[in-house]
Amino acid sequence: SHVPFSLPRYSEAEMLHRSQEFYALMNGRRSVRFISPEPVPRDIIENVIRAAGTAPSGAHTEPWTFVVVADAQTKSEIRRIVEEEEEINYKLRMGEKWVTDLKRLRTNWVKEYLDTAPYLILIFKQTYGMHPSGKKRTHYYNEISVSISCGILLAALQNAGLVTVTTTPLNCGPQLRQLLQRPLNEKLLMLLPVGFPSEDATVPQLSRKPLDDIMVFV
Amino acid sequence: SHVPFSLPRYSEAEMLHRSQEFYALMNGRRSVRFISPEPVPRDIIENVIRAAGTAPSGAHTEPWTFVVVADAQTKSEIRRIVEEEEEINYKLRMGEKWVTDLKRLRTNWVKEYLDTAPYLILIFKQTYGMHPSGKKRTHYYNEISVSISCGILLAALQNAGLVTVTTTPLNCGPQLRQLLQRPLNEKLLMLLPVGFPSEDATVPQLSRKPLDDIMVFV
Ligand SMILES: Cc1cc2nc3c(=O)[nH]c(=O)nc-3n(C[C@H](O)[C@H](O)[C@H](O)COP(=O)(O)O)c2cc1C
Ligand SMILES: Cc1cc2nc3c(=O)[nH]c(=O)nc-3n(C[C@H](O)[C@H](O)[C@H](O)COP(=O)(O)O)c2cc1C
Repeated sequence: SHVPFSLPRYSEAEMLHRSQEFYALMNGRRSVRFISPEPVPRDIIENVIRAAGTAPSGAHTEPWTFVVVADAQTKSEIRRIVEEEEEINYKLRMGEKWVTDLKRLRTNWVKEYLDTAPYLILIFKQTYGMHPSGKKRTHYYNEISVSISCGILLAALQNAGLVTVTTTPLNCGPQLRQLLQRPLNEKLLMLLPVGFPSEDATVPQLSRKPLDDIMVFV
Repeated sequence: SHVPFSLPRYSEAEMLHRSQEFYALMNGRRSVRFISPEPVPRDIIENVIRAAGTAPSGAHTEPWTFVVVADAQTKSEIRRIVEEEEEINYKLRMGEKWVTDLKRLRTNWVKEYLDTAPYLILIFKQTYGMHPSGKKRTHYYNEISVSISCGILLAALQNAGLVTVTTTPLNCGPQLRQLLQRPLNEKLLMLLPVGFPSEDATVPQLSRKPLDDIMVFV
C-alpha cells in the first residue's frame, strides 16, 4: 500500500545555504591512508552504518552487509591477506600503466592502516538473496546499489569527523569472505579503514575538476 | 607531492549528535515518483552536483558527467524514449518474476515525472578517458566510482529539501546518449528526476532492515 509523503520545506535562501554547506563539508573529504589508533566510540560507527542502510536499492532488496572489524587479531589477519595479494597485484597483475597511474598517489602494498585503524568496515554485496521458501531471489543492480550506499557511508563518516580511504582489495574477496565467515552469496566490494587521521597524516596534492568539466546544462 | 591533512575535530558528544542527525536526515529520504512542476533555482542544482563531484574515484579519474536537462522539449523526448523502451521491458524483457517484484512498488512504464520534474539529471560514466596525447586512459572501477558519487548526490539532494527517484532506464542508454550528444566513451548509468514532491505525492509503504540485519561486529 501507498502512504502520503512530504518533506520539511525550506525557504529558497535556506536551500541555497544548506546546499553550499553540504558541498563545503563534502569537499573537505580526502582519502586518508594514515590513520590514528585512537579509539572511536562504537555508537558513532553504528550511526554511520544506519545512514548507509537508508540507501535506495533495486526493487528494495537492500543487498548489503557491513562487517565492522574491531578485533586486533582479525585486523592483522586481514592485513596479512591484503598485503600478500597486493604485493602480487603491484608486481605482476596490474601492469605497468596502472602502477604508474598510482605512483602519484604513493600507494603501494604496505597497508599499515589495516592494523592501526580502530575499525575496518568490509562492505559485502549480496549477489542474490533467499526467499523464505529457500528459492534464490535475484538482486537487481546489487553492485550499483551497494556502491550508492557506500557513497552515503562516506558522507556520514565525513560528517562525523572521521576519515577513511575507499579501497577495493583485488583478489582478496574470497579469502576475506572465508575469514569473516560470510555466506557464498556475499562478495567483497570495498574495505574502509575508519578512524581519526594520524597527527602527521598527509594526502596527495590533488585538485578536483571544476563544475564546468563535470556538468552539462541543457 | 603530499600535503598535511587535518579535519575539524569534534568532541565525542558532537560526533554522536552529528551522526544521529545525519542518519535522521538520510532516513527521511524516499524514492518519490510524483514530482511537482514548481521551479527550483539552478544554483541549488549546481551545488548538489559540486558535492557529487567530490566523490572518491579509482586513481582519481573522476569518471562522471552530469547532464542536467531543464529544457521542456528535451525532457519530453527523453520521456518518449524511456516510455517506449520501458513498455517493452515490462511486457517482454523483464520476465514475470521481476515484474511481480516491482508490483509492490506500483512502478510501470508510464513516467509522468519525466515531463513534470523541473530537472532531469542524467549521470554518465566515462568508461575510458583520453590522455592529452589522444591515447585512451583506463578508468578503473568507473561504475563503482560513479555510483558512489551518485550516493553523495542523493544525500545532497535530501539535505537541500529536494526529492528524486534513482532509475536505471534499461536499454535507453544509447538513444539518450545520442539525444544528448555525449561522446562514445560515456554510458548512461542513472537518470534522476529532481524537484519538490507534488502535493499529493505518495510512496510505497516500506520498512528498512534494522541495524542487526545489515551489520556484523567482529
Ligand atoms: C540501482 C537502482 C535502480 C533503480 N531503478 C528504479 C527504476 O528503474 N524505477 C523506479 O521506479 N525505481 C527504481 N529504483 C528505486 C528503488 O525501487 C527504491 O530505491 C527502493 O524501492 C527503496 O525505496 P526508497 O528509495 O524509497 O527507500 C532503483 C534503485 C536503485 C538503487
Ligand atoms: C572504487 C575505488 C577504488 C579505490 N581503490 C583504492 C585502493 O585500492 N587503494 C587506495 O589507496 N585508494 C583507492 N581509492 C581511492 C582513490 O585513489 C581516491 O579516491 C582518489 O585518488 C581521489 O582522492 P580523494 O578520495 O582524496 O578525493 C579508490 C577509490 C575508489 C572510488
